Amino acid sequence: MVLQYDGTKYNGWQKQGNTENTIQGKLEQLLSKLTGEEIEVHGAGRTDAGVHANGQVMNFHTDTLKLSPEEIKNQVNMYLPEDIAVLEVKDKDARFHSRLNAKEKTYCYKIAIGVKADVFERKYCLLHKDALDVAKMRKAADYLIGEHDFAGFCDRKPGKKSTVRKIKKVSIIENNDGRKLEIRITGNGFLYHMVRLITAMLLEVGEGKKEPESIKKVLEVKDRAVAGGLAPAKGLVLENIVY
Amino acid sequence: MVLQYDGTKYNGWQKQGNTENTIQGKLEQLLSKLTGEEIEVHGAGRTDAGVHANGQVMNFHTDTLKLSPEEIKNQVNMYLPEDIAVLEVKDKDARFHSRLNAKEKTYCYKIAIGVKADVFERKYCLLHKDALDVAKMRKAADYLIGEHDFAGFCDRKPGKKSTVRKIKKVSIIENNDGRKLEIRITGNGFLYHMVRLITAMLLEVGEGKKEPESIKKVLEVKDRAVAGGLAPAKGLVLENIVY
Repeated sequence: MVLQYDGTKYNGWQKQGNTENTIQGKLEQLLSKLTGEEIEVHGAGRTDAGVHANGQVMNFHTDTLKLSPEEIKNQVNMYLPEDIAVLEVKDKDARFHSRLNAKEKTYCYKIAIGVKADVFERKYCLLHKDALDVAKMRKAADYLIGEHDFAGFCDRKPGKKSTVRKIKKVSIIENNDGRKLEIRITGNGFLYHMVRLITAMLLEVGEGKKEPESIKKVLEVKDRAVAGGLAPAKGLVLENIVY
Repeated sequence: MVLQYDGTKYNGWQKQGNTENTIQGKLEQLLSKLTGEEIEVHGAGRTDAGVHANGQVMNFHTDTLKLSPEEIKNQVNMYLPEDIAVLEVKDKDARFHSRLNAKEKTYCYKIAIGVKADVFERKYCLLHKDALDVAKMRKAADYLIGEHDFAGFCDRKPGKKSTVRKIKKVSIIENNDGRKLEIRITGNGFLYHMVRLITAMLLEVGEGKKEPESIKKVLEVKDRAVAGGLAPAKGLVLENIVY
């Protein structure tokens, strides 16, 4: 199932304890009602509270054959709130897992430059008053490309799991006469808060508070304390998953 | 001043009696504070409650020379709520009047086809469950082109003022695999509710409830009762004014 959602009102993708107000929770509740089974859904990206999606992918298992993928799509869309939509439903092999099989994920960070955001996009972008040095940000972003240990760009304490990820592409695109900036990051996977920590540092580079080499430094020392702040959730969108 | 606003929360453009919650009211209040004069603003289009704008134009007179157009833009943007934004401020000849000098206005009606709108555009489009016969709608729209008496497409009782207007162009564009429809109307001026009445009829033609010739009929008989319903405000945007 390919999903789109406005994350503003939700406590993120993942169901946690008795936090009912999650995207995962809404979908499980609805699909369980629809199929009469107890449905568990698996999302490709566990988006944080306030983060949006325009191409989240999730899978679930069901024995119900009475509904076609198209019927499931329409039924679910009809009962979901206005801020969550199903874009596509496909019948896949039973071994398919939306997170474990994902080869590539793309996140996009939208930034409005100036005292005011475009009013129609105000809930989906981060407002940044001053102009940013995009050339410096691009130079900084270049250090991210390739396979690195991103432990310094992760807000979870190091455990047994690998913190090595591969970043395939980072594009920083200015448009609307420099009033808008989009930072788009594609990689084989992302650690907890990784995109938001990277973005916060790229913004500091653009502001002239840090040098492009700061990114390289975090990758070398692998120290979260060196990375700095966390960019706000509202500008971030999970755009696309490739299998 | 070129303006953008999300009309959802407002009682439309025009200040009326003690209806404080209007775009005009917000701007007059702020500009009066900023200049220390009593400022009156004139909008090119008097958008209804709930109608949006992406290129509304308004003018006002001031003797204050202490602020440049750019400074006015920034100051006003800083103090206006998030759902109203100033895109541009220009110093014009004292005789300039944003409504009386307007040569052409373009309104756009956005329609989402299906059980669900794009979540990021849900507040700015009208949801229409079933597919529409676009060829028929285009045929109907052709009858609007040119100079006509639009009294039948007006929700104000006939008075001394002319109800003749000239429609230059109507385009009906499908995109996003037929999930979205945009009806864009350009004319030298529009009567009260004219775009919404025309759109409601075009939708009925698209649904097969009326024939394309129904538009011609309303133009001939000039009778509001023949026109039918009013399309909801939320899908309508004042896009552009040409001088």
